[in-house]
Amino acid sequence: MFSGLWLISILSYLRAMFELLRKNIEKHLAISDSDFERFTAPFYHRKIAKKQFLLRAGQICKFEGFVIKGCLRVYYLDEQGQERILYFAIEDWWITDIDSFTNNTPSILNIEALEDSEVLLITQPYKEALYEQVPVVEKLFRIMTQKTHVALQRRMISALGKTADERYLEFITKYPQLEQRLTQLQVASYLGISHEFLSKIRKKLAKQR
Amino acid sequence: MFSGLWLISILSYLRAMFELLRKNIEKHLAISDSDFERFTAPFYHRKIAKKQFLLRAGQICKFEGFVIKGCLRVYYLDEQGQERILYFAIEDWWITDIDSFTNNTPSILNIEALEDSEVLLITQPYKEALYEQVPVVEKLFRIMTQKTHVALQRRMISALGKTADERYLEFITKYPQLEQRLTQLQVASYLGISHEFLSKIRKKLAKQR
Repeated sequence: MFSGLWLISILSYLRAMFELLRKNIEKHLAISDSDFERFTAPFYHRKIAKKQFLLRAGQICKFEGFVIKGCLRVYYLDEQGQERILYFAIEDWWITDIDSFTNNTPSILNIEALEDSEVLLITQPYKEALYEQVPVVEKLFRIMTQKTHVALQRRMISALGKTADERYLEFITKYPQLEQRLTQLQVASYLGISHEFLSKIRKKLAKQR
Repeated sequence: MFSGLWLISILSYLRAMFELLRKNIEKHLAISDSDFERFTAPFYHRKIAKKQFLLRAGQICKFEGFVIKGCLRVYYLDEQGQERILYFAIEDWWITDIDSFTNNTPSILNIEALEDSEVLLITQPYKEALYEQVPVVEKLFRIMTQKTHVALQRRMISALGKTADERYLEFITKYPQLEQRLTQLQVASYLGISHEFLSKIRKKLAKQR
């Protein structure tokens, strides 16, 4: 009796997770039930406790992942040994090192959970198989990669051409839900500025409001 | 008689241009003759004289282009009105503002010819039609966008984490043919440093060799 209930609750939890994934896909295109089933079949579920790593620099990134719970950060160490945050990922975001995943080369990135997190992962051979077997997956990742690329281009332009104040304002406007879940140190590392400098910006902006 | 020869020479020139495009595609995947013909049919040819613009900030980028001759730069003006070069494109490179092209929004980028240049262009409705009609095009752009994204991620990491010396060395090692065709001012703008600072780096490196 107990194990039956447990099974039902596990199954309904899994269903809810995959619902989140389906909603994510449907932001980009329509997908039939059977294509969605074929698409999701190779995904597996993983929990990552806070401060644990999903990927460490030097490893080959064998997965592409969809975050269903928690918050992770993708970062690397620069030449001076300083942590530089490339991006954060919360629920409904995709996460991978596309360079390492695509080229099968050691990653220079680390992916660490900032909160207890859960992800759905797919490995490279399964993803390649999907491209061949489910044409809509090709379209989906063409569109998603295009959008990610647009986002990275905007970030690059922002990093090169805007002041730290502007980049901070842009960040909190674009990702209000993210800023609340991060420490100031993490936000500073994402913006490529010191913790002290971020504090100054925040104080200045607080006065202006 | 004269016009016949002229036509033959134009046709053979066009053939050579499309051969370059075919070689570019075949770096990524195999394409059949008939798919290649259907893919290239909507492309049109355009000459851009040195210092002319293919795109100006404020315009919607209506094209995705393949460079068959010359050299172009993609740049924008930062908040201080300074020119920032996002990337250069020479023969065998693709060029567009993917943000404006995809989202049909005014571009913040300028695309200017640094040499007399020629491009093959395709517009958005034709490209969308190709995705529907020629499945291999979907795969091609999925793979190409993925690779462009990897390149941009590497550049972002490099911009955030490396010194100007390292970024300059990386640039000349990766694109030796490009550096020879650019002014020092253009290279400096690409690296996000002043002209004077680049001169210092070059002198220092020359001494070390």
